[in-house]
Amino acid sequence: MSVLVVGSVAFDSIETPFGSRQDVVGGAATYFALAASCFTKVHVVGAVGEDFGPAHMQVLQRRGIDLSGLERVKGKTFRWAGRYSYDLNSRETLDTQLGVFEKFNPRIPESCLAPDLLFLGNIDPDLQWSVLQQVKRPRLVGCDTMNFWIEGKLASLKRTLSGVDTLVINDSEARELAGEANLVKAAALIRAMGPKILIVKRGEFGAAAFGSGAPFAVPALLLDTVNDPTGAGDSFAGGMMGYLAAHAGEGSIGESALRRAIAMGSVMASFTVQSFGVEGLLDLTRERIDQRYEEFRRLSHFHEA
Amino acid sequence: MSVLVVGSVAFDSIETPFGSRQDVVGGAATYFALAASCFTKVHVVGAVGEDFGPAHMQVLQRRGIDLSGLERVKGKTFRWAGRYSYDLNSRETLDTQLGVFEKFNPRIPESCLAPDLLFLGNIDPDLQWSVLQQVKRPRLVGCDTMNFWIEGKLASLKRTLSGVDTLVINDSEARELAGEANLVKAAALIRAMGPKILIVKRGEFGAAAFGSGAPFAVPALLLDTVNDPTGAGDSFAGGMMGYLAAHAGEGSIGESALRRAIAMGSVMASFTVQSFGVEGLLDLTRERIDQRYEEFRRLSHFHEA
Repeated sequence: MSVLVVGSVAFDSIETPFGSRQDVVGGAATYFALAASCFTKVHVVGAVGEDFGPAHMQVLQRRGIDLSGLERVKGKTFRWAGRYSYDLNSRETLDTQLGVFEKFNPRIPESCLAPDLLFLGNIDPDLQWSVLQQVKRPRLVGCDTMNFWIEGKLASLKRTLSGVDTLVINDSEARELAGEANLVKAAALIRAMGPKILIVKRGEFGAAAFGSGAPFAVPALLLDTVNDPTGAGDSFAGGMMGYLAAHAGEGSIGESALRRAIAMGSVMASFTVQSFGVEGLLDLTRERIDQRYEEFRRLSHFHEA
Repeated sequence: MSVLVVGSVAFDSIETPFGSRQDVVGGAATYFALAASCFTKVHVVGAVGEDFGPAHMQVLQRRGIDLSGLERVKGKTFRWAGRYSYDLNSRETLDTQLGVFEKFNPRIPESCLAPDLLFLGNIDPDLQWSVLQQVKRPRLVGCDTMNFWIEGKLASLKRTLSGVDTLVINDSEARELAGEANLVKAAALIRAMGPKILIVKRGEFGAAAFGSGAPFAVPALLLDTVNDPTGAGDSFAGGMMGYLAAHAGEGSIGESALRRAIAMGSVMASFTVQSFGVEGLLDLTRERIDQRYEEFRRLSHFHEA
């Protein structure tokens, strides 16, 4: 099965204590697509400007990602610049230029109107809703959002959430969206808004998932090199959705497939943070991925029967 | 096998957004001993004042904890008062009165000079060292410390660490002790100071362990009620050491026993934080503990063979 992702494709300028990169291809949809492409066919819907040339397209096309939904419009590509402090947990945005992304209005190409899995990247919830209206109901709809939309467009966000199966957001955003400091209670409140499954990203502390069964939580891989956390959450979501597309089988997606998918999302995020920008995702083989997945399984398991 | 713990026994006054308690029996050694006593015989070495009466002693004695090493001296028992903010991750110390703890100089009673397992609670590293000099080399020495000693008595602390097998400290303390922001690298630096095993407490995000084999990490249990985090770390250490004393068997303590012990430490911490003060530890049965252990195993496992 294939995955359609709608979201930002951007040029990022990143500074961390360990190095920097200028105007490299980034954006949520880019990280998502590169991670998911390790498992399945990925289609990207987004918008870039005239400054996004063939070499930039190649970053994604080289992984077999379909860019027929990536509009190239007059103007400049979305640019973001940020700086991370030494502990890599807090970052400062130095510059944001929305460019063509300011007027982005996703149009799903004919060839993608019946996606198996759909992921609504972190964009205006009205645009996310518009995507849901355009496509034939996918088997699974995943969605990301952020504090900006929770604070500024809550009614729109709630409408979108009513059509979402799996919400994938940060720990603090989950608490903010629910207006509840306890994560377990927050999850119940969010699930009552629509998503049957809430997946909470906890950065260097891993991830947690809440569905109809018992909750699930994993730590993150313990890495001796973390160079750049940019895109970790998007790589997580891409790895998870890509794995589900490839491995979930027919019928409804079961708890154990979801757990494995979350573990695979953690694995993909770990590759991203070890290098700068998307570099860690470019040359991955399935063998290296599976090797790290096994390492991750060993990391957190105890009391094996 | 039995466990000897040396550390503080105190009166705590606790305020959290969910309630408060005045002058209740607390202190690191108390939490540790109550948690460990669910698994094995525990001996406490500490000091209390004249205000520590038979009813206070009963809190520990009711669990079969040996208090022959708890000196009762002229003066007042150590008192601590603290307040937690709504997210329960940060706390403010409102008052500290060391009382008899100021001149505490641990003397190990004759009957405890050959402990199977020893835990050096978070006290002056010179006193921890003095305890190590008094006892016959235990099978396992565990140790806690804090930023106060890392910053104020580093040379003494390093001397103590040279005689410690397992150091159990917070995430930020591990990074501070090593002078290294990356936890994996910090663990290697700390293990070079003496402890063969470093166990890192990460509060609501669980725990990690670094030894000679592959690293280990677990999330914390996801609880819908967290009333008071006081003593969580000490309960964790007590559950871990108590479990090891009861279940590690003869010979050196293997990786899988240690992993199970860390999981059990997490379980005991979860009981502590659900109630105020030590209340959550008082009426535990092994059946309830084992039930939650199984719940914890289910929480974090994926890809079972």
